[in-house]
Amino acid sequence: MEAINIALFGLGTVGAGVVNLLQENANELASRAGVRLNVTKALVRSAKKARGCDSSHIAFVDNADAILNDETIDVVVELIGGTTDAFDIIEGALKAGKPVVTANKALLAERGTELFALSCETKTPLLFEAAVAGGIPIIKTLQEGLVANRIEWIAGVINGTCNYILSTLARTDAEFDDVLAQAQAQGFAEADPRADIDGIDSAHKISLLAAIAFGTQVDFAHVDCEGIANLSRVDTDYAGDFGFCVKSLALARRCDNGELLVSVSPTLINKSHLLASVSDEMNAVMCQTNMLGPSFSMGRGAGSLPTASSVVADLVDIVRHRENAQRFALIHPVVTADAGFSEDALAKNASPYYVRLRAQDKPGVMASLTQVLAGAKISISSMVQYPLDTQTVDIVLLTHMTTGQAVSQALGSLSTKMSEIDELVHYRVADFLY
Amino acid sequence: MEAINIALFGLGTVGAGVVNLLQENANELASRAGVRLNVTKALVRSAKKARGCDSSHIAFVDNADAILNDETIDVVVELIGGTTDAFDIIEGALKAGKPVVTANKALLAERGTELFALSCETKTPLLFEAAVAGGIPIIKTLQEGLVANRIEWIAGVINGTCNYILSTLARTDAEFDDVLAQAQAQGFAEADPRADIDGIDSAHKISLLAAIAFGTQVDFAHVDCEGIANLSRVDTDYAGDFGFCVKSLALARRCDNGELLVSVSPTLINKSHLLASVSDEMNAVMCQTNMLGPSFSMGRGAGSLPTASSVVADLVDIVRHRENAQRFALIHPVVTADAGFSEDALAKNASPYYVRLRAQDKPGVMASLTQVLAGAKISISSMVQYPLDTQTVDIVLLTHMTTGQAVSQALGSLSTKMSEIDELVHYRVADFLY
Repeated sequence: MEAINIALFGLGTVGAGVVNLLQENANELASRAGVRLNVTKALVRSAKKARGCDSSHIAFVDNADAILNDETIDVVVELIGGTTDAFDIIEGALKAGKPVVTANKALLAERGTELFALSCETKTPLLFEAAVAGGIPIIKTLQEGLVANRIEWIAGVINGTCNYILSTLARTDAEFDDVLAQAQAQGFAEADPRADIDGIDSAHKISLLAAIAFGTQVDFAHVDCEGIANLSRVDTDYAGDFGFCVKSLALARRCDNGELLVSVSPTLINKSHLLASVSDEMNAVMCQTNMLGPSFSMGRGAGSLPTASSVVADLVDIVRHRENAQRFALIHPVVTADAGFSEDALAKNASPYYVRLRAQDKPGVMASLTQVLAGAKISISSMVQYPLDTQTVDIVLLTHMTTGQAVSQALGSLSTKMSEIDELVHYRVADFLY
Repeated sequence: MEAINIALFGLGTVGAGVVNLLQENANELASRAGVRLNVTKALVRSAKKARGCDSSHIAFVDNADAILNDETIDVVVELIGGTTDAFDIIEGALKAGKPVVTANKALLAERGTELFALSCETKTPLLFEAAVAGGIPIIKTLQEGLVANRIEWIAGVINGTCNYILSTLARTDAEFDDVLAQAQAQGFAEADPRADIDGIDSAHKISLLAAIAFGTQVDFAHVDCEGIANLSRVDTDYAGDFGFCVKSLALARRCDNGELLVSVSPTLINKSHLLASVSDEMNAVMCQTNMLGPSFSMGRGAGSLPTASSVVADLVDIVRHRENAQRFALIHPVVTADAGFSEDALAKNASPYYVRLRAQDKPGVMASLTQVLAGAKISISSMVQYPLDTQTVDIVLLTHMTTGQAVSQALGSLSTKMSEIDELVHYRVADFLY
């Protein structure tokens, strides 16, 4: 049986997953792909480090050219991460006519436009299923399964660290910082968790999904991004009382005014909605389409083997279409239109809002609040007052459609004027999901 | 721009959906496929009948050869249904080297082995995404997105009629026959609903999914199939009390003994499980895989445009890979192993069971029941007695792992012996989902 030789750049968690998967499911894969998939080389920093896989058949090299100039290597898998060396590697591989599979969402979100253009120019495939939502085949679903549809919006719970933290907050009485520490201890969060907690990782991923769904360039800079670091557990509790859970929701949506909103933000989701049932390290993506209607996919969004599942699916795609690589390469980045990205998307685009004020329990606060909201034409759908002690209350309200800008302006100026108001937060409610 | 000419066999609900979709999303599709997709001919019985689409650009013909011998036709879409004429049409198209898209699950489930062999032999694609779960791209997900995984089981809620009826039973106080009549009035059930109600439609679909997932021949005859016609609403009510909903569950599972269980049966599913949240006309498929773990997809399982979404996705696949049709054709039916189908799957394979006996409320019934169960080594996990009137009770119990055979034998012989027992039903509980 014909064999395809694969070189891995990087042999860490995901790389070891790829090697283990190819070994464990070798017979199925040979039958389904019609060839043997052999990892023959790997670029690693230290040849002596223990790997979580049998690497006895893999030649370790310490420089990229030893792979890129090797004519026996058919396909390259980039798993070193980062946006500099990884760029050079992918650029070099495409120029050498070697198809590339990568899981590097940061690189593609920040410099994907160049690389996709090079993939088209060299007619060499650049596949990236593993870059978004781990093992869920969401890239293929958007590019192929739902290809007949115009996408109206995509909403995703696509960061496992945030989702683990928010699920634990909803399930227990623990505070945010303790849950984060616990997530780090269990390997669900990085030692430096900022890329996850601040929403950057989700922003990378949603910018890729938006590019595919709306036929735009990948443009990470246009994602309006709010993390979960400032989220307080009182808000997840109150949201729960109102029938919602809080998720870090990545969203790409063509608005009524034609603008493209791409955002990541803590968002209230009705507990009865499917996205609310996505807990811990699971990921899910929901699309609203103009022909099929809603489409929902769920699966593991991270981890060695789930990510390897997507890397190897891309390898099989490349192998199955290797005699047609030129055309196959062109499936991917289809730019059909000016994006029309919305600036300040989260502030400007209408949504119902959850608003909480922490205030001194004095006469006049509620009167001033309702008067200010009425003046700003912000209409209240429900309001509850939670006494914290004899002097302080939390006033929690849900609004009808308004904008974050309107809420910030109206209540921000109120809290500046009234020393009785100590704290003001507001989060979007994902009404469009229903 | 290059154009691809498509001929439709049949221009009913789905055919009109295809024409409408191609018109509505024409620009997106031209950009994504790189060609115009034009329906130029359609085989119809009556050229005068009103169609739910603009057919002014379509030449109507009344015999298959007017399409099969037409060299301007690039692709054929078979939508006439049935297993005789449709077979001849697909056979003729493949022999003429014209790729085929079909939504005909009955044909593929009953005669697919021949047609897939012909597709391989003629190296001409035969695609059928629309045949299972309407607009959910589950065929592509299994064949491509999850290609790196060994599938452990697939469970699906894949018949909209059954699911509409069961969802309505769970939500209202109506009786089965009234809900069925209402479903027929609303177009969710056919005038002759037997293929749906008896599980045949789900059986067709799960036999296709099983063939793909387990690399076996399509073999509808080996699906052990139990419909929902005998399901009584007292059982859906009692199941609800125990925390379950009842779904018509299609299942394909490699059992511990190596046998392949393929079945359709009314099955109790924990209300907290995702599959329980699939209501009315929605479909969902869950797979357990050895690398990714669980994978879940949900979407509309029927209807004009959702089904057209899958038909057109197949058309785009064919177009994108038309220079590579030979290899592309071979992606599909991969027979890797003897199936090892389980005979009498539902009776022989272990599961927890829901059991209900309707009995006269006389001393000794419960003693005999528990004695018989103990004798048959059927262990009870919970039991509740529901008095219906002063003389009659329903005894409902959940068992630990046992077999349908054991339950039937033990309780069947008891009810034969004891005239006090009037009714005996048992349904599987989908414990493996958790």
